[in-house]
Amino acid sequence: MQLTGRNIIGFESFSEGTVAIQGINPATGETLAPLFFKATLDELEYAAEKAEKAFQIYRKKSGFEKANFLEKIAEEIENLGDTLLERYTMESGLPQARAIGERGRTLGQLRLYAQLLREGSWVNARIDAAMPDRQPAPRPDLRSMERPLGVVGVFGASNFPLAFSVAGGDTTSAFAAGCCVIFKAHPAHLGTSELVGKAVQKAAEATNMPDGVFSLLFDDGHEVGMALVKHPVVKAIGFTGSFKGGKALFDAAVSRPQPIPVYAEMGSVNPVFVLPKILAEKGRAIANSYLASATLGVGQFCTNPGILFLQNNKDFMEEIEKNASNTQGGVMLTPGIRDAYVRGTDHSRQFTEVVGIGKAPEGFTAVEPIILRTDIASLNAKPELAEEIFGPTSLVVEANTKEEILIAAQNLVGHLTATVHGTPEDLEEYTELLDILEQKVGRLIINGFPTGVEVNHAMVHGGPFPATTDSRTTSVGTRAITRFTRPVSFQDFPDSLLPDELKDDNPLNIWRMIEGELKK
Amino acid sequence: MQLTGRNIIGFESFSEGTVAIQGINPATGETLAPLFFKATLDELEYAAEKAEKAFQIYRKKSGFEKANFLEKIAEEIENLGDTLLERYTMESGLPQARAIGERGRTLGQLRLYAQLLREGSWVNARIDAAMPDRQPAPRPDLRSMERPLGVVGVFGASNFPLAFSVAGGDTTSAFAAGCCVIFKAHPAHLGTSELVGKAVQKAAEATNMPDGVFSLLFDDGHEVGMALVKHPVVKAIGFTGSFKGGKALFDAAVSRPQPIPVYAEMGSVNPVFVLPKILAEKGRAIANSYLASATLGVGQFCTNPGILFLQNNKDFMEEIEKNASNTQGGVMLTPGIRDAYVRGTDHSRQFTEVVGIGKAPEGFTAVEPIILRTDIASLNAKPELAEEIFGPTSLVVEANTKEEILIAAQNLVGHLTATVHGTPEDLEEYTELLDILEQKVGRLIINGFPTGVEVNHAMVHGGPFPATTDSRTTSVGTRAITRFTRPVSFQDFPDSLLPDELKDDNPLNIWRMIEGELKK
Repeated sequence: MQLTGRNIIGFESFSEGTVAIQGINPATGETLAPLFFKATLDELEYAAEKAEKAFQIYRKKSGFEKANFLEKIAEEIENLGDTLLERYTMESGLPQARAIGERGRTLGQLRLYAQLLREGSWVNARIDAAMPDRQPAPRPDLRSMERPLGVVGVFGASNFPLAFSVAGGDTTSAFAAGCCVIFKAHPAHLGTSELVGKAVQKAAEATNMPDGVFSLLFDDGHEVGMALVKHPVVKAIGFTGSFKGGKALFDAAVSRPQPIPVYAEMGSVNPVFVLPKILAEKGRAIANSYLASATLGVGQFCTNPGILFLQNNKDFMEEIEKNASNTQGGVMLTPGIRDAYVRGTDHSRQFTEVVGIGKAPEGFTAVEPIILRTDIASLNAKPELAEEIFGPTSLVVEANTKEEILIAAQNLVGHLTATVHGTPEDLEEYTELLDILEQKVGRLIINGFPTGVEVNHAMVHGGPFPATTDSRTTSVGTRAITRFTRPVSFQDFPDSLLPDELKDDNPLNIWRMIEGELKK
Repeated sequence: MQLTGRNIIGFESFSEGTVAIQGINPATGETLAPLFFKATLDELEYAAEKAEKAFQIYRKKSGFEKANFLEKIAEEIENLGDTLLERYTMESGLPQARAIGERGRTLGQLRLYAQLLREGSWVNARIDAAMPDRQPAPRPDLRSMERPLGVVGVFGASNFPLAFSVAGGDTTSAFAAGCCVIFKAHPAHLGTSELVGKAVQKAAEATNMPDGVFSLLFDDGHEVGMALVKHPVVKAIGFTGSFKGGKALFDAAVSRPQPIPVYAEMGSVNPVFVLPKILAEKGRAIANSYLASATLGVGQFCTNPGILFLQNNKDFMEEIEKNASNTQGGVMLTPGIRDAYVRGTDHSRQFTEVVGIGKAPEGFTAVEPIILRTDIASLNAKPELAEEIFGPTSLVVEANTKEEILIAAQNLVGHLTATVHGTPEDLEEYTELLDILEQKVGRLIINGFPTGVEVNHAMVHGGPFPATTDSRTTSVGTRAITRFTRPVSFQDFPDSLLPDELKDDNPLNIWRMIEGELKK
């Protein structure tokens, strides 16, 4: 498939803009053809107009129709075959195995949502029937369910060119909810974005979705994105990226004349705690698993374990010292991300001790892992050491007492995850630690590592600020769909005018809450 | 029961403050004993410290324990008997029948939530079991459920001294969620607030809830409320009141270092549309029902129908002209609310035609209903005529065509409700109107009136901005509980450390989503 560098607005391609942007291969530093064209504000306006019109049609599509659309997107992405994998690896510096894995995740996500829509009960349908004879006043018939918010603006993430990008989790859950999507591509994978954007476009046409249900805009600056957040047609925002980026979108969204929700997943440091007894039993094994998790994928995961707390333990530290220098770095996604990594680790190194520096391959943006150590007192004196440095670095913090561990946990800000390693006895003794951590994170892990985020029904990939701008939900898994809906109540509606989900005879055979009881 | 005028913080009463405030009887203008004392910022700090500590205990209370607490609150409110009813009517100017009705609603709400907690499935428990043999990587065990956010700040509303006040919907749903509450009393019903606050305090002691689970602070200004919204311990805000008040709290909350959600229900104009065929059939009857709804409770409801659209109809207008002057006004809640009503209607009268002015009883804050009329062109020229004037006034807007009606609907901002009166044929012909309105409101009503808000499972009392600051939920009914929770995922937890809701053998026998399927 030929790349054009043109924005996709509904069923057409556009390049009204004249300012070209170009991707680079982070492994070689070479620029990549073709030229892409920055969207203009007029193009955004055109996309918004089409999306608003499309929403009036798309919001009425049945769960089955939306499921077909999502599955067709998956099929069209599969049809891209090696073209997609090649572009992905060229643009991201990530290896082909990762490209294949992430494609699988993306397809799985689309198909999981198709299942959810076919099953249909996600709408949380509720019926409280009329009681015409109730005293002192009759009770009306009330029925309610989740309904789509409208047009959603979504931003691509640098670190998941498929799973958190054009047809990734935010787009998929917005489509599933019944919302139209205007997508701002991430400049680090313009070609991958165009390929997937065309797949979405083809799927929309093939499944008879309205022109404008999806648009894709390119930009390497902030203008188009900010205008998207402020556009009156846009009713919610999905974003995965840096704290600075997410917070800027949040601030813009809440200061609109009509504020809108922003679901910004802004990463986190994902603290790991290793408790005394398990350290004594398995300190060396945990040390090696930790190094593997911290350096996996050149550390470019939102759930990368960036800090680890333990009470002094010789085995663990020895093993880290021995093996940190054997860890493997790699090519980072962009020169900007590499520069931030170098700046961040240079700064941290001034105030900590370097345990070991791993290896790096050749490559334009290649970096090596850097494992650091410090103690609780030094961390307390310099709390910014606990802030995220995106990449394959992690800080081991040594404490002397349980008390210090608990205070360190108390001092944590919001994170996506926290992990505790412990024997059954350890966990018994540290229930207070688990209690504290549960209040700080979206996902709490025992004896594992936070990297590896399952896409299923029970996943929560979220957490208190600053991990996200909205802790009440998740950006991964089927719980994410209600980010883009709100409940609407229908009072005394004739059956024929009700949505199928609320009709008397339950034609979709979904679970509904009838007078407070779940029934089919 | 003797009123003391003292703030309630946890299980003690306080009046560190020296600035006295005093209620008035709006019917007579007389000040009411005793003196109440404005809370100081130190008292707020003390309440916050206690609430934060209490939360560590209260968050672990079982659904059964919380249900007992809520039912005990209901019982203690009932025990207040006539003392409460007398204070309520004295402070609010509302009649005793209304006091009894609203008390019933408040008790019903507490008991409905107790039922919800005993049943237990509201937590949305989800289990995706481990698959240790999955390739290429094992799948961990993941379980998630809703968990309480923390300490919640709640503001009392002037117009529901019981149902939207100290032990009203926000407090009840926050307690049910597992949150502690710091309550800022409304200055228009200080005594009622103290009585109910003491009932809550007694119930908390009797059911062994932690000291600090609830605090009540008095203030007649903005200082304590603003400090409450900005306090780092506070994790969410519940509010019912004016747009100006709610928006100020929202702006303060989103600009905190850690932004928090604000559930502000800011009222609305609740447009009513009467379609041509039903007008021809029942124009006079609808006119009278409309007058009754618009003047009910001196128009002091968030769901008061403040604007009505119709295509020119002689019968309807004749009936309004005939009967508007027979409608009954009354004593308004406060002199401030009366003044705003007089200012608002004086302004609107300059640009509209007065159809009729109703009657008013004697009374310090008494006002008469004012029914106004205009046409679409005049409304388009002066859109502020469609803004809320709290009180017994409503504006009839005459259109000439279906097109004008649809455009008027399109131009609406967010409202709590919209109502359509129509014959089956009308509704068939105006499906587009229903479509438009559904996107503007939280509750859509056919052939009824919006006043009368049921407290049940299917109710949505919410809607797009500016009706609320968060359209994704409701402030009435059991759906409101998740305003004060967020999902947390537990990965690879030993069964003994999981919350009961997520344990293997489902000891609470609740509905859970197992691999995407609801099961018990």
